[in-house]
Amino acid sequence: MTGGLMVPLSGQSQSAGQDQFQLINGNTVDLSEIINLFDFEKMAEGKMPKMAFEYVASGAADEFTVRWNRQALDAIKLNPNVLNDVSKLDTSVTLFGHKLPYPILVAPTAFHKIMHPEGELATARGASKAEAIYVVSSFTTTPLEEIKKVATEPFWFQLYVRDDKEFTKNLVQKAEELGCRALCITVDTPVGGARDRQARVNFKLPDGINAPYRIGESLSITWKEMEWLISFAKVPVLLKGILHPDDADKAIEIGASGIIVSNHSGRNLDTVPATIEVLPRIVERVNKRIPILMDGGIRRGTDVLKAIALGANAVLVGKPICFGLASGGAEGVTKTLEILRAEFEMAMALTGRATIASIDQSLIWK
Amino acid sequence: MTGGLMVPLSGQSQSAGQDQFQLINGNTVDLSEIINLFDFEKMAEGKMPKMAFEYVASGAADEFTVRWNRQALDAIKLNPNVLNDVSKLDTSVTLFGHKLPYPILVAPTAFHKIMHPEGELATARGASKAEAIYVVSSFTTTPLEEIKKVATEPFWFQLYVRDDKEFTKNLVQKAEELGCRALCITVDTPVGGARDRQARVNFKLPDGINAPYRIGESLSITWKEMEWLISFAKVPVLLKGILHPDDADKAIEIGASGIIVSNHSGRNLDTVPATIEVLPRIVERVNKRIPILMDGGIRRGTDVLKAIALGANAVLVGKPICFGLASGGAEGVTKTLEILRAEFEMAMALTGRATIASIDQSLIWK
Amino acid sequence: MTGGLMVPLSGQSQSAGQDQFQLINGNTVDLSEIINLFDFEKMAEGKMPKMAFEYVASGAADEFTVRWNRQALDAIKLNPNVLNDVSKLDTSVTLFGHKLPYPILVAPTAFHKIMHPEGELATARGASKAEAIYVVSSFTTTPLEEIKKVATEPFWFQLYVRDDKEFTKNLVQKAEELGCRALCITVDTPVGGARDRQARVNFKLPDGINAPYRIGESLSITWKEMEWLISFAKVPVLLKGILHPDDADKAIEIGASGIIVSNHSGRNLDTVPATIEVLPRIVERVNKRIPILMDGGIRRGTDVLKAIALGANAVLVGKPICFGLASGGAEGVTKTLEILRAEFEMAMALTGRATIASIDQSLIWK
Amino acid sequence: MTGGLMVPLSGQSQSAGQDQFQLINGNTVDLSEIINLFDFEKMAEGKMPKMAFEYVASGAADEFTVRWNRQALDAIKLNPNVLNDVSKLDTSVTLFGHKLPYPILVAPTAFHKIMHPEGELATARGASKAEAIYVVSSFTTTPLEEIKKVATEPFWFQLYVRDDKEFTKNLVQKAEELGCRALCITVDTPVGGARDRQARVNFKLPDGINAPYRIGESLSITWKEMEWLISFAKVPVLLKGILHPDDADKAIEIGASGIIVSNHSGRNLDTVPATIEVLPRIVERVNKRIPILMDGGIRRGTDVLKAIALGANAVLVGKPICFGLASGGAEGVTKTLEILRAEFEMAMALTGRATIASIDQSLIWK
Repeated sequence: MTGGLMVPLSGQSQSAGQDQFQLINGNTVDLSEIINLFDFEKMAEGKMPKMAFEYVASGAADEFTVRWNRQALDAIKLNPNVLNDVSKLDTSVTLFGHKLPYPILVAPTAFHKIMHPEGELATARGASKAEAIYVVSSFTTTPLEEIKKVATEPFWFQLYVRDDKEFTKNLVQKAEELGCRALCITVDTPVGGARDRQARVNFKLPDGINAPYRIGESLSITWKEMEWLISFAKVPVLLKGILHPDDADKAIEIGASGIIVSNHSGRNLDTVPATIEVLPRIVERVNKRIPILMDGGIRRGTDVLKAIALGANAVLVGKPICFGLASGGAEGVTKTLEILRAEFEMAMALTGRATIASIDQSLIWK
Repeated sequence: MTGGLMVPLSGQSQSAGQDQFQLINGNTVDLSEIINLFDFEKMAEGKMPKMAFEYVASGAADEFTVRWNRQALDAIKLNPNVLNDVSKLDTSVTLFGHKLPYPILVAPTAFHKIMHPEGELATARGASKAEAIYVVSSFTTTPLEEIKKVATEPFWFQLYVRDDKEFTKNLVQKAEELGCRALCITVDTPVGGARDRQARVNFKLPDGINAPYRIGESLSITWKEMEWLISFAKVPVLLKGILHPDDADKAIEIGASGIIVSNHSGRNLDTVPATIEVLPRIVERVNKRIPILMDGGIRRGTDVLKAIALGANAVLVGKPICFGLASGGAEGVTKTLEILRAEFEMAMALTGRATIASIDQSLIWK
Repeated sequence: MTGGLMVPLSGQSQSAGQDQFQLINGNTVDLSEIINLFDFEKMAEGKMPKMAFEYVASGAADEFTVRWNRQALDAIKLNPNVLNDVSKLDTSVTLFGHKLPYPILVAPTAFHKIMHPEGELATARGASKAEAIYVVSSFTTTPLEEIKKVATEPFWFQLYVRDDKEFTKNLVQKAEELGCRALCITVDTPVGGARDRQARVNFKLPDGINAPYRIGESLSITWKEMEWLISFAKVPVLLKGILHPDDADKAIEIGASGIIVSNHSGRNLDTVPATIEVLPRIVERVNKRIPILMDGGIRRGTDVLKAIALGANAVLVGKPICFGLASGGAEGVTKTLEILRAEFEMAMALTGRATIASIDQSLIWK
Repeated sequence: MTGGLMVPLSGQSQSAGQDQFQLINGNTVDLSEIINLFDFEKMAEGKMPKMAFEYVASGAADEFTVRWNRQALDAIKLNPNVLNDVSKLDTSVTLFGHKLPYPILVAPTAFHKIMHPEGELATARGASKAEAIYVVSSFTTTPLEEIKKVATEPFWFQLYVRDDKEFTKNLVQKAEELGCRALCITVDTPVGGARDRQARVNFKLPDGINAPYRIGESLSITWKEMEWLISFAKVPVLLKGILHPDDADKAIEIGASGIIVSNHSGRNLDTVPATIEVLPRIVERVNKRIPILMDGGIRRGTDVLKAIALGANAVLVGKPICFGLASGGAEGVTKTLEILRAEFEMAMALTGRATIASIDQSLIWK
């Protein structure tokens, strides 16, 4: 992308017509009061059934990591330059040979039909309209075949490796056949975490909503199973959930194409550090051998800027997409991404950075 | 213990039948809404007389140490590994030749009959069912002989050394004769602390509840008296209340078999550090010469993991047991321990640690 | 200025007659309950239309920088001396050959007619009465010619460099012809920030209020345009919005006469550091080659003292002037400055500093 | 003092008869619910006229230093030893040849008749009963001659040096003739501070209450005037309000017998550091040449312990005495001191310190 701000700046983007859309059931949703991503969370809380909201919004145990993800991003101070030429911003990045207009992906999150009747189809349409890659969760409530039909931008696929190898292999091959461009294997969940808030609402999928690729947990997944999967995968494989530099090393050794620094948004193990705090050590160890993505707490354009300045190639956003989806279906997803993109562009302009390559550690106040 | 999670994970453990039980007076208690140990505190506050609750819940003076015990545990960040084989967890530890299925003991706490009509008998039954050692307080409101009858797991005994040496010696010998496996001598209480909240409710034992081994305080207890007691004790003697490395050294010199790093849960001297903050210095000085236990603020499985990672051989929990007892008698005690045990197992699995021996300082984010 | 406190100390300054004045519309305003600058903010919030208050009070995004500006000033501790002779305070400083009785200027802020019907005329009168330089914003709602008529003290002029060079040059020359003593070029705003609170109230200028020198934003302003402007300016040019030592260097290289360390009061890019945190690095790099001014969060006399101790030659106050103006027109502006001046004098006396030159880093507790 | 706890421990000290006393006006005051010094503040707030309460309770400006005084004390962690012999505590200290049973003095505070009808007479009686030295303020509302009549323990006198040298000299000589054992010269108040809360209630002495030795402020007091006063004083002279090591040096050079590390309880200059934070630097510089006292935020026995551990020879308490006085006259003053003394003794016992000399820096957790 070249040539100035591609999307309207937040607070200046609303025209009433553009922000109203028809829901399946005929109701009209008005997103004109949405100024930032936090607004979507508040709106979603009012619209979603409590069980669904608790599922999306909650983290493990006392939710320290959930808060730390945000607090650590907020606490990072920027060190801007002025009077650089930022009249032509280029926010594009290239990942595994594919050029993204801006470095933000839709993170894999489960069960979209509990958030919005159109479920993953709305997410796919909304992400595509915003020119973003959608990483479909293996806990999707919509079959991949249907998602593929509506996605006009590339999609990736996330999965867990299960004891049932046959099932796992079939699922990978189906995703590849449907055009999935990369696979994200979640490696941080040998067991579920202490999901107290989910337990408190007795979370379960409502009748009539199914997750076709969801199978039981497994305790015996190790590096060996990752090697096995990488051995037959035809697309780049990223390991999602790496927090330890040693594990980043091992990922590279077994042939992973990328890693995603993630603490599962604080949903699995409470009191692991914020991902933005972990990122620099991983970046140092990986030393540009493979791309590094990061998720966890991204809510502001400045958060994206900070993650990139500290070495991420791109970021993923999960909960905000869910809240956008719950608030306004595909339009909500699009608007979530557009706000974040516009804020990111503002942050680049206001720090004197015209390209992604110019965003480095010198931008962080020390 | 070998072979996966022995107890159901929190939030997945409740079956209505299992969580309901008959109280002595015929009332039925429903613990199915208890998800974590904090829930027990809230439930107990609603059930206990104010005087009893204040006795259990309060600390000295402004309760800084009470809060610091928790805050310091919460603030420690974990540095997990992924894709290790955690399909077979072994959480067992051996203390003084006895193998514990998991490294959590019931700390000595006073006056259980003010918390629940069944008092220490319920505690003993509940702890035994959860396979945990119960350290009986010398301020028990139930004679040791009765406790011994219901305890199917080993018990230890805590006492103060008093001016009345004859009394002290007799009490030790009685405990030993009844099968007590170890003695914990509390060394941090030459005088009571500024227990303002207890003073405010004018705490005293209700009529009809007696503490048979409770005698007046003493100011003249020194290392010499400890040596004397160790000289005739037939079971391992642990000194409870050590916070200074020099005192840990002295304890070893006079023949103590173990020490318990404890600040009396912040009930004696306010503004002493959190025990988890003190632990590493004691561990360094003791250098594996004798086992080190720790109490103070343990509420989450991750807390247990952190204490062990920083060098504790096991931890004790006090107030949570009291709140479990007050909430649901023996069942409440059992559930308290089971939740903590299950969370600890989850924390091991989610950090890639399959054995206690593999839990070391590398697990702490620095 | 020599000879003791020139203005009455806060809390001792009110005589009813002096603090009441006539507004244009005939209402009488009573400022006798105003003790400090925070009182003006509260009073202004009660008097201003919500849109105007939000415009003045708000910062960008989550307003971290807005809060940090204050918190960083508050957190700096003073290291006072006693028993120095402070019977004759001299608070004067000289900037570009002009002697100011005390080192506080009125920062450029936009749209004064939305705050008070007399707009910039009241500001000019109020600042003049308090012997302070008024830096008129190029977003003034009153023509410079009229401001000049009422200002009995010197004024400066702030502007943005725009794509329309002719317009820019004409504006500079008009300001110079009207007697403007210095120009402040704002360099930190290539685009607007994420002004969420302004977006939420849909901020725009009310009918009947115009900003005659306000023209559209520009993205192509660089060091080259600054050089161009300096080449023809006849008065000292200060660059406002410098946060990076490298940019301070460049400013000197292209011939700037001074710089203003500013983060636009946290209105443009959230999570840039507090200006008082940035100041010492700029001071070190500039090394007295040109004067350094600072704005951002100044509310107390001790704040002025701290900024000067850390190397600022003078400070500017913006929002407090707006709140003073909204609360009491010219009198409110005067009282705002007088309170700050009196507090500054108290702070000098109480730290044992009789002159501005004696205020240095030794006054900061480390 | 030798031989165990001399005063009953807090929370165990109340017998109804002892805690009730007759006020001048015949009302009975019940102090039995007072457990700690904070209780007195709450009780006093309910009893005092707002103007008087604001006078006592308030600090300068935003009261950062007021809060820091407490926070810094609270944040210091203790490093206790166990099993030392603390059966015989000796809390006595010797200051200028006079032995105090415990190291706590009554700080000079102004205008006691606005707090209680008996004013300084009640303070003197209450302090004497508690065996504490009372430092009478030169802003006393009771003549020294009357105070002398009721004080059965020694008293000291605080004063400001004024332009009127004759007046100052006469006041010193009167104090000496009446038996004053030491003089405290306040050196931190060349002008008053930004006492916003006092301004807000328009503080002034009520009709019928006079401060006979109060004369106007002065700006011209320097080291020279201190030398002059020391030259004719017959008793030890302490300088009160020293925060800078250089000023401690100068105080010794001109012959001061002691210094009081004080920030005027945060009433003069906001954002000076907590006195307990300043203390170690002063202690290091003074290097035992003269005694060092400290005031500022002492509310707990552990605070006294910390100040002594960091090098103070004794501490003074001001506001707590005022609140005790307002709550219960002489009895309130006595009880305030007794609670603090008892807590201090508990803190010594619980840290294993039997004498003041054994309280040193090793007691502070680092």
